[in-house]
Amino acid sequence: MSDQAHTEKILLGLEHALDRNDLEGFVQFAKQIPIQDVADFLFYLHSNRRVDAFRLLPRDLGVQVFAYLDPEVGEGLIGNLDDHERQHLIAGMDPDDRAALLEELPEKVAGQLLTALPADEQALTKRILAYPEDSVGRRMTNEYMAVRAEWTIAQALEHIRTHGRDAELLAVIFVTDEQGLLLDSLRLRRFVLGDPGATVESIMDRKFSAVRAEDDQEKAVETLQHYDLLALPVVDANNHLIGVVTIDDIMDVASEEFTEDFHRQGAVADLGMSLREATIGLLWRKRVPWLVTLVFFNILSGAGIAYFEDTLEATMALVFFLPLLIASGGNAGTQSATLMVRALATGDVRMQDWMRLLMREITVAISLGLTMAVAVALVAWARAPEVAVVVGLTMTCVVLMGSLVGLLLPIVLSKFRCDPATASGPLVTSVADVCGVLVYFSIATWYLGIGQIPGE
Amino acid sequence: MSDQAHTEKILLGLEHALDRNDLEGFVQFAKQIPIQDVADFLFYLHSNRRVDAFRLLPRDLGVQVFAYLDPEVGEGLIGNLDDHERQHLIAGMDPDDRAALLEELPEKVAGQLLTALPADEQALTKRILAYPEDSVGRRMTNEYMAVRAEWTIAQALEHIRTHGRDAELLAVIFVTDEQGLLLDSLRLRRFVLGDPGATVESIMDRKFSAVRAEDDQEKAVETLQHYDLLALPVVDANNHLIGVVTIDDIMDVASEEFTEDFHRQGAVADLGMSLREATIGLLWRKRVPWLVTLVFFNILSGAGIAYFEDTLEATMALVFFLPLLIASGGNAGTQSATLMVRALATGDVRMQDWMRLLMREITVAISLGLTMAVAVALVAWARAPEVAVVVGLTMTCVVLMGSLVGLLLPIVLSKFRCDPATASGPLVTSVADVCGVLVYFSIATWYLGIGQIPGE
Repeated sequence: MSDQAHTEKILLGLEHALDRNDLEGFVQFAKQIPIQDVADFLFYLHSNRRVDAFRLLPRDLGVQVFAYLDPEVGEGLIGNLDDHERQHLIAGMDPDDRAALLEELPEKVAGQLLTALPADEQALTKRILAYPEDSVGRRMTNEYMAVRAEWTIAQALEHIRTHGRDAELLAVIFVTDEQGLLLDSLRLRRFVLGDPGATVESIMDRKFSAVRAEDDQEKAVETLQHYDLLALPVVDANNHLIGVVTIDDIMDVASEEFTEDFHRQGAVADLGMSLREATIGLLWRKRVPWLVTLVFFNILSGAGIAYFEDTLEATMALVFFLPLLIASGGNAGTQSATLMVRALATGDVRMQDWMRLLMREITVAISLGLTMAVAVALVAWARAPEVAVVVGLTMTCVVLMGSLVGLLLPIVLSKFRCDPATASGPLVTSVADVCGVLVYFSIATWYLGIGQIPGE
Repeated sequence: MSDQAHTEKILLGLEHALDRNDLEGFVQFAKQIPIQDVADFLFYLHSNRRVDAFRLLPRDLGVQVFAYLDPEVGEGLIGNLDDHERQHLIAGMDPDDRAALLEELPEKVAGQLLTALPADEQALTKRILAYPEDSVGRRMTNEYMAVRAEWTIAQALEHIRTHGRDAELLAVIFVTDEQGLLLDSLRLRRFVLGDPGATVESIMDRKFSAVRAEDDQEKAVETLQHYDLLALPVVDANNHLIGVVTIDDIMDVASEEFTEDFHRQGAVADLGMSLREATIGLLWRKRVPWLVTLVFFNILSGAGIAYFEDTLEATMALVFFLPLLIASGGNAGTQSATLMVRALATGDVRMQDWMRLLMREITVAISLGLTMAVAVALVAWARAPEVAVVVGLTMTCVVLMGSLVGLLLPIVLSKFRCDPATASGPLVTSVADVCGVLVYFSIATWYLGIGQIPGE
């Protein structure tokens, strides 16, 4: 059993064997732990030592370990191998992993590696690369098992026994007709538990789900998760079976999609790679667009203040409460946006629910706003009683406005087929800031009766 | 195949059958689509019609559909059933689902339902409920298949055929000794593909992972995802097999954990339920603590401004750039925090990497700060040239400070065993705001030479 203490002992053994360049010892230790742990060991090594360690692995084990390496780490590693090592590695990889890797490599290197492949593998790889990025086609494998409806279960099992050894996943078996039309998708258990003399037809229920190779990977995630499947058949336009996506790949996609949403919600463009491996230049490029975009909103806030300069000069105490008021609107807005973005992503709420959600949000926001208003009006009363009413009134308004911006922005974005997660905390906060400044000084000008609203 | 058009036709059929209270028609339509789609149909009905629809389902189908209903919806539904219906439903449920439901129900109702169960089911349910919330024990099932190492593969398959019909998952078969000690965890395919005459021992590699019933569910998610497993054995302190958690449950846990992190990052306390079903009171309670907490930080910002009142009165133009500068620090901080929180959650970066990450962050933040400084100094130059240098200098400082707060806060929280996601955008923004105010007016007071720093 791979418990913590055992794994750590092995990792230390690997470390020492690597230090002494002890091939035999290294392999012996590596074989005692799951492949994923060997990949982890390589991941945390310095890149020079990583190449040395990888070279100590027997070829087949190397190919398997490589599949679990972070893509950027793998890319760096492959750059340090010689032509012969590289070709062997590429030839041994799963078609979907190979396609993903080749796309990341410099075009010239990728081209050389592709031509060195056997003709059928070459064609397969090119076919996968022809599908759009983030499509199901990029993640599918053709190493599945299909049987025929008219066979007996015994015949099907015999077929699986003879041809199933290389399939990536056997937990799900597909049923097709002679033309390859997909008829059903059944768990292996049904064959094991079934009456050997009965036909495959007799255990079919045809209640299966499938995706198209051109479909977005997100659709595969939703379908697989919704129906609790272990694998999802991929079909062409004529419903012919052309591949399969498995649950482990789908869990990786789900995790990547979530990271993307999470980053977007924090106003960071999709990194597309590990934070650990990201360069300074990449991080700058992924962060600067939103920072600069938001500057424009914030300049509007400044312009709003400038417009109300007379009001401000008449009652300087107003400025002390400015950060508090605009921040509260932004915070309430961030909360609403966060709740909506996630609920839309999980399908918990649907677009057509927006009216009901809006009504509820107004009630919640007014309650929150009044709670906050009482708190800050008391603070204001103690420090600057002349603005207490203005501050309390403004608080209620900004929390309401911020919440509505937070609720509606993701819905509007979704309506225009943009990712609702683009309604990030910082964006909602900036919009709420502008509104907050205008409302605050309008109320102050009106309540404190400081001349006319300027410009009138 | 369950494609969109077909499913929609069936859903319409269900709707009409329900309107006409047509039992036979309803059941006929319901049987044509996956159980999950029937549950979805109920989910989107008004609660009165939901009870009517549920009553139209045959008992066994009802139990299956119930398992896929949102917990709050299920809870509401069960409140509208009579005692007899309720007891039947509870008795038919999977032990883990049953335990989860009973805990949500009012204590008196739950107690009645529990005592109505058969003795063995009652004991099992109580055992599950004794495990801590969010522990693996709460999600495990005892409906697994275990075989013995000394059996032949043919014997093992025969055992699976005879006893496997009720197991929740057969894709993974466990190997135990006569005392129930867990020896290995093997995919069903190994048995199907193996030589029937060979022993189970011969196909074992003992490189399996297991979790304890007391472990956090998050550990099960990580382990299962890291090792690409379909099910994870659950053991007691003596490594005896006591249950199994399956990948579909784990995907649900992963999704719930995502939602929790996502909400936390937006300063919303864990809702613990569907946003769609959340009441106004619940939403208020989950949002108000952070909003009020953040008020205190923002009062500090106000106090900072008050402290520098002389500087501000001498150069009113400073206030126009206040929202812009403090917001930029907050935005940069939100970005850093978002990147760190997610990287810590996925294990992409480890605590011991913090020094390297800090160095990189300083470089990235200074580059970002200088970019932004140039942009705003140009704007300031055009509108209020007397403060352009102050604004540019401050921008560089606040972006750097905000970024460092965003990077370090999740690390510090993690160090103190708090959830790093507590370093939400709004929290980081509020901290950055306070720092921003102080830095801005300090630089202004110094550069513009407005008397002494007040208080000196």
